[in-house]
Amino acid sequence: MKPINVGLLGIGTVGGGTWTVLTRNQEEITRRAGRPIQITAVADRDTERATSLTGGSVKVTGDAFEVVRDPSIDIVVELIGGYTVAKQLVLEAIANGKHVVTANKALLAVHGQEIFAAAQAKGVMVAFEAAVAGGIPIIKAVREGLTANRIDWIAGIINGTTNYILSEMRDKGLTFADALADAQRLGYAEADPTFDIEGVDAAHKITLLSALAFGIPVQFDRAHIEGITKLTAEDIRYAEELGYRIKLLGITKRKADGFELRVHPTLIPSKRLIANVEGVMNAVVVKGDAVGATLYYGRGAGAEPTASAVIADLVDVTRLHTADPEHRVPHLAFRADQLSDTPILPISEVESAYYLRLRVQDRPGVLADITRILADQGISIDAMLQKEPSEGEQQANIIMLTHVTREKQVDAAIVRIEGLDSTVGAVTRLRLEELNG
Amino acid sequence: MKPINVGLLGIGTVGGGTWTVLTRNQEEITRRAGRPIQITAVADRDTERATSLTGGSVKVTGDAFEVVRDPSIDIVVELIGGYTVAKQLVLEAIANGKHVVTANKALLAVHGQEIFAAAQAKGVMVAFEAAVAGGIPIIKAVREGLTANRIDWIAGIINGTTNYILSEMRDKGLTFADALADAQRLGYAEADPTFDIEGVDAAHKITLLSALAFGIPVQFDRAHIEGITKLTAEDIRYAEELGYRIKLLGITKRKADGFELRVHPTLIPSKRLIANVEGVMNAVVVKGDAVGATLYYGRGAGAEPTASAVIADLVDVTRLHTADPEHRVPHLAFRADQLSDTPILPISEVESAYYLRLRVQDRPGVLADITRILADQGISIDAMLQKEPSEGEQQANIIMLTHVTREKQVDAAIVRIEGLDSTVGAVTRLRLEELNG
Repeated sequence: MKPINVGLLGIGTVGGGTWTVLTRNQEEITRRAGRPIQITAVADRDTERATSLTGGSVKVTGDAFEVVRDPSIDIVVELIGGYTVAKQLVLEAIANGKHVVTANKALLAVHGQEIFAAAQAKGVMVAFEAAVAGGIPIIKAVREGLTANRIDWIAGIINGTTNYILSEMRDKGLTFADALADAQRLGYAEADPTFDIEGVDAAHKITLLSALAFGIPVQFDRAHIEGITKLTAEDIRYAEELGYRIKLLGITKRKADGFELRVHPTLIPSKRLIANVEGVMNAVVVKGDAVGATLYYGRGAGAEPTASAVIADLVDVTRLHTADPEHRVPHLAFRADQLSDTPILPISEVESAYYLRLRVQDRPGVLADITRILADQGISIDAMLQKEPSEGEQQANIIMLTHVTREKQVDAAIVRIEGLDSTVGAVTRLRLEELNG
Repeated sequence: MKPINVGLLGIGTVGGGTWTVLTRNQEEITRRAGRPIQITAVADRDTERATSLTGGSVKVTGDAFEVVRDPSIDIVVELIGGYTVAKQLVLEAIANGKHVVTANKALLAVHGQEIFAAAQAKGVMVAFEAAVAGGIPIIKAVREGLTANRIDWIAGIINGTTNYILSEMRDKGLTFADALADAQRLGYAEADPTFDIEGVDAAHKITLLSALAFGIPVQFDRAHIEGITKLTAEDIRYAEELGYRIKLLGITKRKADGFELRVHPTLIPSKRLIANVEGVMNAVVVKGDAVGATLYYGRGAGAEPTASAVIADLVDVTRLHTADPEHRVPHLAFRADQLSDTPILPISEVESAYYLRLRVQDRPGVLADITRILADQGISIDAMLQKEPSEGEQQANIIMLTHVTREKQVDAAIVRIEGLDSTVGAVTRLRLEELNG
């Protein structure tokens, strides 16, 4: 049967992995897809390297637009990244009637609606399994495997860099800065790690999962984002004492009046499977009303794991190539004319349990003042740990876990607690999720 | 758009769950599938109960053949179970041009080739996500999510009953018989639990996964099957001391000269995520050459979790309904004309590490004799635990872990060890898998 011709934009880490895996497993992939899938054109700034990697067997160009305009190309794989050129390339590929496979979560989280609408109008597919959690087929699971369910929530460790840093902080008692330096030395964090450590990358991904789960548009600008830069080894240790691990989670939840969409460090009970996902590994828990909680675990980054997702999309597109566009799996799991306009809730309306750590003068009546403030705000305490002052110190640490409450109540309480004479410095506040299925 | 009409054969636990979930989530399912999916006919021996469950809104019959012959039905859902009538019904539904969705692992593991060939010839789909691991979309993951990979192995906890029994034996130090009785009392084990505790159910499931992973025919008769009935709390405890948990695993592996296909109690390092899957939960690890190890976890049984998989198949079939049969996802992941005839290896040729427990006379030279025999068979020892005799006893327990070796070597060694004067009774032998990805 006639091969499917693929144009590869960018042959760096993931592009190189895609080339390698597609070549190595060509025979098995063809037995699955029904026809050969071959890369026939590669665009990369470094044409010399691209030529040497591909052994001179395919067309190599420095101009990616040449590939998206090439009439012999059936599918364009966009692995350039970023918002600007990548967006132009994807839109032009679509306009030229080509299917698109991309790993670009930033592009889709920000410009997804425009891109999916263009693809819909043109009757082509935009596949993006590689955009979330690398090789884990989580998009397929949510979009096709759990279609029976009203999805209640999704919570995921979807950034390997930060999970590696948090694992190191816990294992070795390192500070954030030292763990980050280790991660950079080992190649798990980039020279400029901002997008990872500030939670932006995780927010791109949970934004996409949120749309897929709930049938709402992609709305990155509504996501609440907190990274891990302010986490201390001390909080990780106290959480541990109370039976919790701290993970950077992307969370999206269905509520009566809207959807929650947020990324932040989160306490999770240690006994949950996802709390035991360590190092650069990723895992996503999806809670559906029929299936209960299901968990998906694997490598979230790296050349071949990400290539695994890119190629799975290539096989999907090849299998569905000739299908009536009206009957293909919808880009965002729900049909484009069936998206809901239920809003994403502001963070102040989010409900969570909380971990609070405060430093107080060690004198009578202090605890009574604090618990009175919490009671006034309707916040009830689930557990408390009081760390007595060391000899000679006049200050003690109080750590409290609250029951589930609305964030604005906690924020109001914190303002009042920080206003007490007996409180030293700021209150540390972390969110806690039970994640029980 | 015109609804898809579904005929339901059997409205017991899973059938009832399918009715409930399809009714409850009708709006969201329609938004995903593009057209309503409605059950319009139900066959069940208990017509009165079926009528009462469905509120009199659909046709109810005691004769399932009436449904598979009904020209208004598009998809038949077979939830009757067993090999005989179910097989006739599925084949007749296919002959009548209907798509089939089934949860019947026994039927497909034994008669899969015949059924898939009939469906292929007729151009209809047979979907069976519910046949393996309940609500976990593991078939979709293997068949569509990991298509880039040469799959190296799959190992799964795919029977909730036995995992519950093993969890209880470990947690509470119960005997197998007591844990089984508990499971029966709680409804986690059937009155006749043979298929579960002897590993037959798990073997049906791993046989299906094996075909999907490697592109080979479904070959249940080649599976090696051992259940958990002979496991003792003592072995579970010793394994724990050595850093392992014992789980009933379905395992299938690619080897140079064929494929392994086996079900048996297995030691797994305690730190692996899958070793911490407790109670009735299921989990499957799939190791691909590109993606590494990925894990899928969730409820493997029960009304709504299994219904979740049945309905996901209904949505898939609805989405692919009008597609050219040549371009649909192949039943067994690889195209029907592309299955490989590489054989399943006999158990004697399987490679594994082993746990050996033996009872010996506590006198000098005994250990030397044993280690000599092992060395003669080319077996090297990884760890050893010697349990000294209690006061007054003359016998000691020796527990050994071997490095990976071929099963026939171990069996030969055991025959010789059991022939020693100093050995008391039989040697207990369990397999051990590292499962590192």
